[in-house]
Amino acid sequence: MDKKMMTIDLNSHVLLDKAEKDGVETMYDRKQGFKSQCGFGLQGNCCRICGMGPCRITPKTPRGICGADEHVIVGRNFARMVAGGTAAHSDHARDIAHTMALSSRDGNYKIRDEEKLIILAKEWDVETEGRDIYDIAHEVADVALMEFGKPHGVARFLKNAPEPRQKIWKDLGIEPRAIDREIATIMHSTHIGCTGDIDSLIHMSLRTALADGWVGSMIGTRFSDILFGTPTVRETEANLGVLEDNKVNIILHGHEPSLSEMIVLASEDPELVALAKEMGADGINLAGMCCTGNEVTMRHGVKTAGDFHQQELAIVTGAVEAMIVDVQCIFPALAKVADCYHTKFITTSPKAKIAGSTYMEFSEETAYADGYKIVKEAVLNFKNRDKEKVLIPELKSKATVGYSADAILGQLDRVVNSHIDPAGTLKPLADCLKSGVLRGAVGVVGCNNAKGVSNLAHVTIMKELIKNDILVVTTGCGASAAAKFGLMTKEARKLAGKGLATVCDLVDIPPVLHLGSCVDCSRILDVVGGTAKLLDMDMSDLPVAGVAPEWMSEKAVAIGSYVVASGIDTYLGVMPPVTGSSRAVEILCGELQDMVGAKFTVNENPQELAQIIIQDIEKKRVHFENLVEERMNEKVEAGAEA
Amino acid sequence: MDKKMMTIDLNSHVLLDKAEKDGVETMYDRKQGFKSQCGFGLQGNCCRICGMGPCRITPKTPRGICGADEHVIVGRNFARMVAGGTAAHSDHARDIAHTMALSSRDGNYKIRDEEKLIILAKEWDVETEGRDIYDIAHEVADVALMEFGKPHGVARFLKNAPEPRQKIWKDLGIEPRAIDREIATIMHSTHIGCTGDIDSLIHMSLRTALADGWVGSMIGTRFSDILFGTPTVRETEANLGVLEDNKVNIILHGHEPSLSEMIVLASEDPELVALAKEMGADGINLAGMCCTGNEVTMRHGVKTAGDFHQQELAIVTGAVEAMIVDVQCIFPALAKVADCYHTKFITTSPKAKIAGSTYMEFSEETAYADGYKIVKEAVLNFKNRDKEKVLIPELKSKATVGYSADAILGQLDRVVNSHIDPAGTLKPLADCLKSGVLRGAVGVVGCNNAKGVSNLAHVTIMKELIKNDILVVTTGCGASAAAKFGLMTKEARKLAGKGLATVCDLVDIPPVLHLGSCVDCSRILDVVGGTAKLLDMDMSDLPVAGVAPEWMSEKAVAIGSYVVASGIDTYLGVMPPVTGSSRAVEILCGELQDMVGAKFTVNENPQELAQIIIQDIEKKRVHFENLVEERMNEKVEAGAEA
Repeated sequence: MDKKMMTIDLNSHVLLDKAEKDGVETMYDRKQGFKSQCGFGLQGNCCRICGMGPCRITPKTPRGICGADEHVIVGRNFARMVAGGTAAHSDHARDIAHTMALSSRDGNYKIRDEEKLIILAKEWDVETEGRDIYDIAHEVADVALMEFGKPHGVARFLKNAPEPRQKIWKDLGIEPRAIDREIATIMHSTHIGCTGDIDSLIHMSLRTALADGWVGSMIGTRFSDILFGTPTVRETEANLGVLEDNKVNIILHGHEPSLSEMIVLASEDPELVALAKEMGADGINLAGMCCTGNEVTMRHGVKTAGDFHQQELAIVTGAVEAMIVDVQCIFPALAKVADCYHTKFITTSPKAKIAGSTYMEFSEETAYADGYKIVKEAVLNFKNRDKEKVLIPELKSKATVGYSADAILGQLDRVVNSHIDPAGTLKPLADCLKSGVLRGAVGVVGCNNAKGVSNLAHVTIMKELIKNDILVVTTGCGASAAAKFGLMTKEARKLAGKGLATVCDLVDIPPVLHLGSCVDCSRILDVVGGTAKLLDMDMSDLPVAGVAPEWMSEKAVAIGSYVVASGIDTYLGVMPPVTGSSRAVEILCGELQDMVGAKFTVNENPQELAQIIIQDIEKKRVHFENLVEERMNEKVEAGAEA
Repeated sequence: MDKKMMTIDLNSHVLLDKAEKDGVETMYDRKQGFKSQCGFGLQGNCCRICGMGPCRITPKTPRGICGADEHVIVGRNFARMVAGGTAAHSDHARDIAHTMALSSRDGNYKIRDEEKLIILAKEWDVETEGRDIYDIAHEVADVALMEFGKPHGVARFLKNAPEPRQKIWKDLGIEPRAIDREIATIMHSTHIGCTGDIDSLIHMSLRTALADGWVGSMIGTRFSDILFGTPTVRETEANLGVLEDNKVNIILHGHEPSLSEMIVLASEDPELVALAKEMGADGINLAGMCCTGNEVTMRHGVKTAGDFHQQELAIVTGAVEAMIVDVQCIFPALAKVADCYHTKFITTSPKAKIAGSTYMEFSEETAYADGYKIVKEAVLNFKNRDKEKVLIPELKSKATVGYSADAILGQLDRVVNSHIDPAGTLKPLADCLKSGVLRGAVGVVGCNNAKGVSNLAHVTIMKELIKNDILVVTTGCGASAAAKFGLMTKEARKLAGKGLATVCDLVDIPPVLHLGSCVDCSRILDVVGGTAKLLDMDMSDLPVAGVAPEWMSEKAVAIGSYVVASGIDTYLGVMPPVTGSSRAVEILCGELQDMVGAKFTVNENPQELAQIIIQDIEKKRVHFENLVEERMNEKVEAGAEA
């Protein structure tokens, strides 16, 4: 296949040509190299868990040496993916909690959303009266850190879910305990000679995934908001066209805001700006990539340079002085690509050292000083830029971003009938769903996957959904796709159906809302959970869904699993490695419905997948509308009795 | 290959014939089915960590889609094996700590080694004066549980190591923090887009492995001793010949003593013994298997029915009423084998449910009642035994077992010159090593692996070592092999060299000492660490080594890694999946020497491996003897100065 057929991003097309000319290998070349991928790996029925293997399931070898069949093998591999994803999100959250433990009035990290901190402190029974906000912050941080390792009890945030949902978790025995313990339990239970039962493996995967969604990710998001400010609506731009010709271009790539917030600060340091000018640049231009990009665009409007699949291409522009990364989704390939240009590829985390990079450790204890040093390194590198090698592609899109759950409430207040209803609630959203003006709301989230065409599934599905009056919320590389393709502009409402367009108009939002990074899928849980509680329903009763059209990471597997376990149907555009076990597919795509009220659906054709989602939302509306009526009758009866 | 060529155990030969006749499939059949195993899996250079893969490294595809090369891929897979093994051992320890938290004077679990508890309480700064022993136990248990999840600080037990060793760990930054956190860190750092550096991956593998050896395993062993009694020397028998013709035969298989201790108690319950007689049996005969076998033989002299590779064959005897299992190393295949006989295959742990088994959940809260119910199920099953189908093979060996570190001290006291030296120290062992009567001491531990001939490597290497005056200590399935082949009898000293034979004679021990289950490799750390401290040396200075001739589990990978990280050279009889990366091999089998003073050596020929070990021990003796002299001169000088 022509490499340009592998992405619909026109900037990427331009840079793929340049890479070819410059003799630089990219992901697209490597993908072409893998003519066919191992069928056992694709189906998940190859076991490498013990040293007697690998054992691969075939008609002639239906069981591994220990006797594990395809169901056991697929289940163990699946569970370990969930454990990996949960570890990634949650370890990110742990760092943010540690950062909060270090916060101080005159230090690098301050409390920026005191109200959110106080709310959380009260939820967690931390004394707030008459205390210094930093004392409260430190105690809340300590409580949060114990959520990773406490020896007793289940996760604190579970009680934020609607009560019927909590009951389902309790009855099924899938209330997560400490996050790290769930990860350790999966690693133990998938060890040779432990769990040999696919039902049990999926069961524990759900429990661990809930630890990701309702504990780790929720801590990650809330603590980031408290420390760095809860996002508010703001304007930005997206795609590689945001790089600037005569500025020091710094790309922030990775995930944890502790680093990126310091880089943002340092990039505004007058000394460094002056240094940039001394070097002949017009200033410093920060741009984000992947989820760090999402974090800084949500909070500061920092422009988004691109997504997971564009990380090498960003360097291929020849205009990037430094690619600064922390953890997750960073191609080790960046080292080789950076070698072909003047770009400094700077790794910063002991959890993600990469061979061939410049390692400049970032520590929360010396955060600003570290950030300063790193930005200085970038600025000093401007002199090494080879103008002959620069090609910044033209395209970029405008985008309105910053839709934290709080910001959504703020927008909804625009349409509150203040004579009847209080402000600051999800009621307007619930009303739109009830009336059917909005047919539903769908989270389109996740990565880019080289198995498909970059961005195609994201954009196709989002467009189809909004056309059918379904509000789209998005995070992660889904959000980058939406931003790049103009779906986050208010003008995009012309692509929306009449109902959604009207809502967008009244509430003054784009039809696709940027909720943040992949950790911020927890905002989706908050909004859906909040709406369900408002309607006296379970989350599984609402006409909502989750979609990961181009998922690729273990984090996405964990997200999909906690979304389903939260009662939200989840649609995947890439088949996970489970088809080797008919039972795994039966459970994940069928029986989970009876267990948790939601299930997985997979279809690798984006158009077909969009239509399935739309049909399912409409089916769900029948149930939802009946329930709305039931609740209304109950109220009427209660009123009559009273 | 003829199946009988795949094991040197003659009982296994008899039962392989019977299995064939009975139409029962065993591991040996399945192994024959796997004519060749996937080369990518064997070399470790196949990556399935994200959903863009699998990616396999070949000359044409030298990097995965993300750019990970063979070193990164091998390193990540290796690190995850260490994480899996650490999770298994440590989760076992966590259960024992929970059990201790439940201990009470009149409950199911009592404190049996108060002295050991008090020592530990003092080590951990838990107040002991004037307190009820159970209050102390509960507080110590709480402290232990925090070792799995504490948000701050490093592991408490590290300070038990010799000081130079502690310094190495500190300087390298490989002091483990909370156990579960280390596991989560590895799962995070091996997620797509995190660590892309083989050195860093091995570095974090060592840290996590140390959490296994010096924290999880050490808690597992010490707490088991405190709760169930520290093993003392006792006589037993080993191999399938321990099954009895007219008794209810119950096999205990798995790992955690919390269950097996209750089964031991219940099997002696007069009601159940009477019921067995009612059923026409002469009584109840317990036999152990794998590490549960090691636990109960060390503490109660319960006979050992066999090892990992004999679990199916035990059922093939047709004489087993129940195979009772908890966690780890249990073939899922047992369900199918049990179906062919009357045997009840009883799973008990939510962490290891197995399809096709009878699930009877065991809970520490209702421990004895659960144990009673399970044993009753076995007893009632005696009536279903089909005498026509019974074949108990004849062979069994005598063995002297129970060599906890404490029991070793007890034996050593036999040769203490009580006019000069205090009793209860490792000095006699140190003296034997110094004088060269004992050339060294080697731990031969680990599993059975179908890649080789069952038991061959264990037995070959142990015999060679003792012949060359090297004392062997053993745990796990290595211990089962030694017991089955008569190496744990005092008579086996005739197979030993003159020096070792003399020591065995004087100290009254067999030349191969049974130290317990795989978790009890921590006893080896205690003995080696203690000896080093006594000699004012580091562990890496002693003429000692670790060998895993037939390793197969991730636990073994973790053990090997912490043994090396503790400064003890480690020899493997099966190649781990790392040969896909020349750097991984260079580091593991070379550069670690400079980092931690020890390294891995791999040779799949047991005879050759034994000779290498012997030569290396002799080389090490040169260094050791020089150091002994140096220390002596220092003392003389210090004396002269004083």
